[in-house]
Amino acid sequence: MSDALLWRTLAREGEARTGVILTRRGAFETPVFMPVGTLGSVKGVRFEELEATDLDASIILANTYHLWLRPGHEVIRACGGLHKFIGWGRAILTDSGGFQVFSLSDLRRVSEGGVEFRSHVDGGLCFLSPEVSMEVQAALGSDIVMAFDECPPGQAAHDAARASMELTARWARRSRARFDELQREGADAGQTRDANGSSDEARMGVDGVSGRQAIFGIVQGATHLDLRRESLARTVEVGFDGYAIGGLSVGEEKEVMYEVVERVAPSMPSDAPRYLMGVGTPEDLVECVARGVDMFDCVMPTRNGRNGQAFTSRGKLNIKNARWTTDTRPLDELCACSVCRRHSRAYLRHLYMTGEMLAAVLLSHHNLAFFLDTMRRVRQAIRSGEFTRFRREFLVGTGSGVE
Amino acid sequence: MSDALLWRTLAREGEARTGVILTRRGAFETPVFMPVGTLGSVKGVRFEELEATDLDASIILANTYHLWLRPGHEVIRACGGLHKFIGWGRAILTDSGGFQVFSLSDLRRVSEGGVEFRSHVDGGLCFLSPEVSMEVQAALGSDIVMAFDECPPGQAAHDAARASMELTARWARRSRARFDELQREGADAGQTRDANGSSDEARMGVDGVSGRQAIFGIVQGATHLDLRRESLARTVEVGFDGYAIGGLSVGEEKEVMYEVVERVAPSMPSDAPRYLMGVGTPEDLVECVARGVDMFDCVMPTRNGRNGQAFTSRGKLNIKNARWTTDTRPLDELCACSVCRRHSRAYLRHLYMTGEMLAAVLLSHHNLAFFLDTMRRVRQAIRSGEFTRFRREFLVGTGSGVE
Repeated sequence: MSDALLWRTLAREGEARTGVILTRRGAFETPVFMPVGTLGSVKGVRFEELEATDLDASIILANTYHLWLRPGHEVIRACGGLHKFIGWGRAILTDSGGFQVFSLSDLRRVSEGGVEFRSHVDGGLCFLSPEVSMEVQAALGSDIVMAFDECPPGQAAHDAARASMELTARWARRSRARFDELQREGADAGQTRDANGSSDEARMGVDGVSGRQAIFGIVQGATHLDLRRESLARTVEVGFDGYAIGGLSVGEEKEVMYEVVERVAPSMPSDAPRYLMGVGTPEDLVECVARGVDMFDCVMPTRNGRNGQAFTSRGKLNIKNARWTTDTRPLDELCACSVCRRHSRAYLRHLYMTGEMLAAVLLSHHNLAFFLDTMRRVRQAIRSGEFTRFRREFLVGTGSGVE
Repeated sequence: MSDALLWRTLAREGEARTGVILTRRGAFETPVFMPVGTLGSVKGVRFEELEATDLDASIILANTYHLWLRPGHEVIRACGGLHKFIGWGRAILTDSGGFQVFSLSDLRRVSEGGVEFRSHVDGGLCFLSPEVSMEVQAALGSDIVMAFDECPPGQAAHDAARASMELTARWARRSRARFDELQREGADAGQTRDANGSSDEARMGVDGVSGRQAIFGIVQGATHLDLRRESLARTVEVGFDGYAIGGLSVGEEKEVMYEVVERVAPSMPSDAPRYLMGVGTPEDLVECVARGVDMFDCVMPTRNGRNGQAFTSRGKLNIKNARWTTDTRPLDELCACSVCRRHSRAYLRHLYMTGEMLAAVLLSHHNLAFFLDTMRRVRQAIRSGEFTRFRREFLVGTGSGVE
């Protein structure tokens, strides 16, 4: 039987690596940044823009928890799965809902079976479990499904972190089992070919992937390296198409996060993608690529954009600042995105100060362009053996301050 | 001396006509709809989209009052004029600020000199007059400037309407005088060539327009036809590059508006564009083209889009309606805009119901596409002598109700 997802390494430099991920919706290179489309839209950014050459996002992330609550996975299934529902033909990764339950909902009660909680939308009682998460993600038909995990606080003590990690390990097994059943049952709404054909040949595409959903496991253990090691071993034992580091960027110190990534990522299977969930700033991305990570997602480009903050090659720029009132330069003089090619700081400041929606649209676009272009430059640097120099110069640049 | 703006009639059918307006920023055909960019942005719609083939807006409107208050015309002048400030190279018409003073501000006091009022932004005391309006519009450097007028309520009694119309007539003369001075002084920030050259030849472009701003006069008189006739005569006596009907769509009955347009538009100079300010629905546009109007502007496509209303070939569609929950059809099955080519009613409803910014972005885009495409079809119909049939079928279609 062929694989749902294939990974090939293209080049390495130290722990940093560039590779290619082949999914049923095409191939893309790593390290990769996934824009976040929580409710099925990358806030304020049209899909045409995501596909345009200055962004050219190969994969986006959508949130199972949010889509499960609204519009509901059966609505999305009835519309032919998430790709058809939102009108996006490239790859989609869905998270499991675990993190949102822990970060957004009230009154949650965790048991062996799953999590009971109240919806942040209408207060209704909900129950999410490995099985439910897999069923929802099958109805969404995403290309990469995440196992259902428990995400403890960043500063969780060893005992609590162990209990949580062990629960995550048991849930990983249940996630994998229910996922496999659902694939066999044909519940996946995002099939790109007949995944229920009578032979492997019928399922095989010219590109060598099966057309089924892929599933990633998640390594937990908070900041405790022994727990992280054990979590990794138990996750690999279950066996997944890729592996993620969860439970970071949730309140711990940045140096602690880097340390955990540095100790965990290089031990993750080298023949599968490594995904650091929910991270981070452009500097975090570069630093974690240096520690062996291949995939990232973060709301920062769009959320900070809506709040008037631009990321640039010389660091962060606050568009509200009065010093930009008549500044006709683009946000970033080194950026070639459609916003920087056309609009000045003065105009963007005016739009922001007058509450024009276009401020959020344009700042989000530029920020995504900066994140995605940074990843493009990282890939080029690794391929040409210049990543160490790139990393040093990038950090000097973003630390220099916007003029 | 060459003209700032040229008008050529291409074809007629009854009072309906199609023509071409040549401005210093290129030619465009009429009847034309101008998207409204109040503060220098058509709310939620990027300029790239306005330029794309499905919208292809040839001219947009910006509001002098709003831009004068924020960011201030001196900021815009410092950034090289409005075109450079916002990043739009096609034509811009600015209104005079008169209508906004009357519709938005408190405590206004009208005198022969002008209007004193309090800003709707910060309550500060402001004074707008024909001279100030011309100075602001010169700093903006728009391609078509509107004379400063007083806009009485739609139901103004004859005496009040006469006094207001006479004031508007005196202000038209002062507007024209100050406008001409400013052109001579080179105050226009939007010059496309040396408008202060030593000879007419130096000012003349290959396209035969002078490179200076054009100015339109405004006919007032509320719903009183005798006052409208007198206003028209006095405005034409001053002499402008084009003529507008102001003070409609401000509370009067729709049939009254049509009647005024029907009686006024055909009497307006046939060798200049006729502009009906602030109107209207797609049906209004078609009906007023039939009565001889060439130019329109209205906030309806974007404002109603933000409120979840789509205009379609079968009438209005309320995207909030639960009947669209799993409807995979586009907003308008006859529309070829980028939104209708890609997104379903179900998705747009979901975006709207969850408060996603993209709902406003996409609905505004579609609505603009519908208005602009309607004008395109009107022009084709007049050229091929089929406007009467088009008008009848269009009204049947939009009256039939969305399925």
